[in-house]
Amino acid sequence: MPLSTPELGRSARKRKLILEAATTAFLNRGYDGTSMDDVAALAAVSKPTVYKHFADKERLFYEIVLATTEPMSDLVRLIADAFGDTRHLERSLRQFARQFISALMQPRVLRLRRLVIANAERFPEMGRAWYAHGFERALAALADEFRRLTDQRLLCADDPLMAANHFVGLLLWIPVNKVMFSGEAGTSSAAELQHYADAAVGAFLSAYGGRDQVTHQR
Amino acid sequence: MPLSTPELGRSARKRKLILEAATTAFLNRGYDGTSMDDVAALAAVSKPTVYKHFADKERLFYEIVLATTEPMSDLVRLIADAFGDTRHLERSLRQFARQFISALMQPRVLRLRRLVIANAERFPEMGRAWYAHGFERALAALADEFRRLTDQRLLCADDPLMAANHFVGLLLWIPVNKVMFSGEAGTSSAAELQHYADAAVGAFLSAYGGRDQVTHQR
Repeated sequence: MPLSTPELGRSARKRKLILEAATTAFLNRGYDGTSMDDVAALAAVSKPTVYKHFADKERLFYEIVLATTEPMSDLVRLIADAFGDTRHLERSLRQFARQFISALMQPRVLRLRRLVIANAERFPEMGRAWYAHGFERALAALADEFRRLTDQRLLCADDPLMAANHFVGLLLWIPVNKVMFSGEAGTSSAAELQHYADAAVGAFLSAYGGRDQVTHQR
Repeated sequence: MPLSTPELGRSARKRKLILEAATTAFLNRGYDGTSMDDVAALAAVSKPTVYKHFADKERLFYEIVLATTEPMSDLVRLIADAFGDTRHLERSLRQFARQFISALMQPRVLRLRRLVIANAERFPEMGRAWYAHGFERALAALADEFRRLTDQRLLCADDPLMAANHFVGLLLWIPVNKVMFSGEAGTSSAAELQHYADAAVGAFLSAYGGRDQVTHQR
């Protein structure tokens, strides 16, 4: 007998509660430190209910990790909107770099990054999927913009995807490593992030600025 | 009564065996997955012997993590030797970039990086110490060289430490992330590493090449 609408609604609500509880538990305690009992307790549902929705802890882990790539869609939109006014490429790039670095340096994003890295050897497909659905989408969108700007001779990027990786590497290498190795104590201040963003844009434009991009001075 | 020399020698040998066994165990099974029993079994010593040398698992973990920054000394020497012949800066930089990327992309270095990142929230001092003794020493040595090359007008780096971070970010962002997120399946081939190294040097010299550095062409 098919479920009636209220039952479906209740089931979906419970599933959502379980996913939220699992995200909290995995981010706080890691994969090994989290049990299905913990998740059930935190979601205030019974353990059989957890197992009805998710066959095992591994399946639940995959699901919550992949769900967290959703906010990347906002970043991809940010990229598409960032370079509309190309009369002031340096200004646009600077503003975009500041927004991008703030978005990726959110504590929750960084804790998730740590969780994925910690478990990538055990669940390589999960890590690959997370990177592909998340970060690579942003890199591809950025590469598209750099290709367009190269066509307009505002940038000079023969390999736009490499240029996108270089942009992000210049921007994120310092602050991401600081947090990855020092935990939350290594969090950069807003002023530091802004300084890294501006320095990255300066270096990037010196490396990849096009012939018709004249506003930039090193 | 002080220990006689043979007893001291035996004690030091056992300590070394324990450290080697612990390194293997932590790298393969992570911090949570490793017990003092595992370490004793792997080192073929008794559990009281392990505790005689290391008060607890945390102390043992710190010790092995910090011991692994030793090979960084080789990298620092590599940096000091890399820019002797500045007549061909681009060639020297390219050769150095290839050596540096190979050294840092060794599976053991990457597994250790993963281990430190996985536990940095729990042991932030350990992560900070590892980064300071390891990576920051290399960055400082590189910054010294960039400062000297800037004085010779071969580079133009107002902030040599930022330039060193940019160099390393351009070089390592892509291949390190690939491995961090995909596990060993994400290991780059030697040819790919060489390509990343050359592209990074090209971008770096376009960004930071000095007035008298004329051999480079984009």
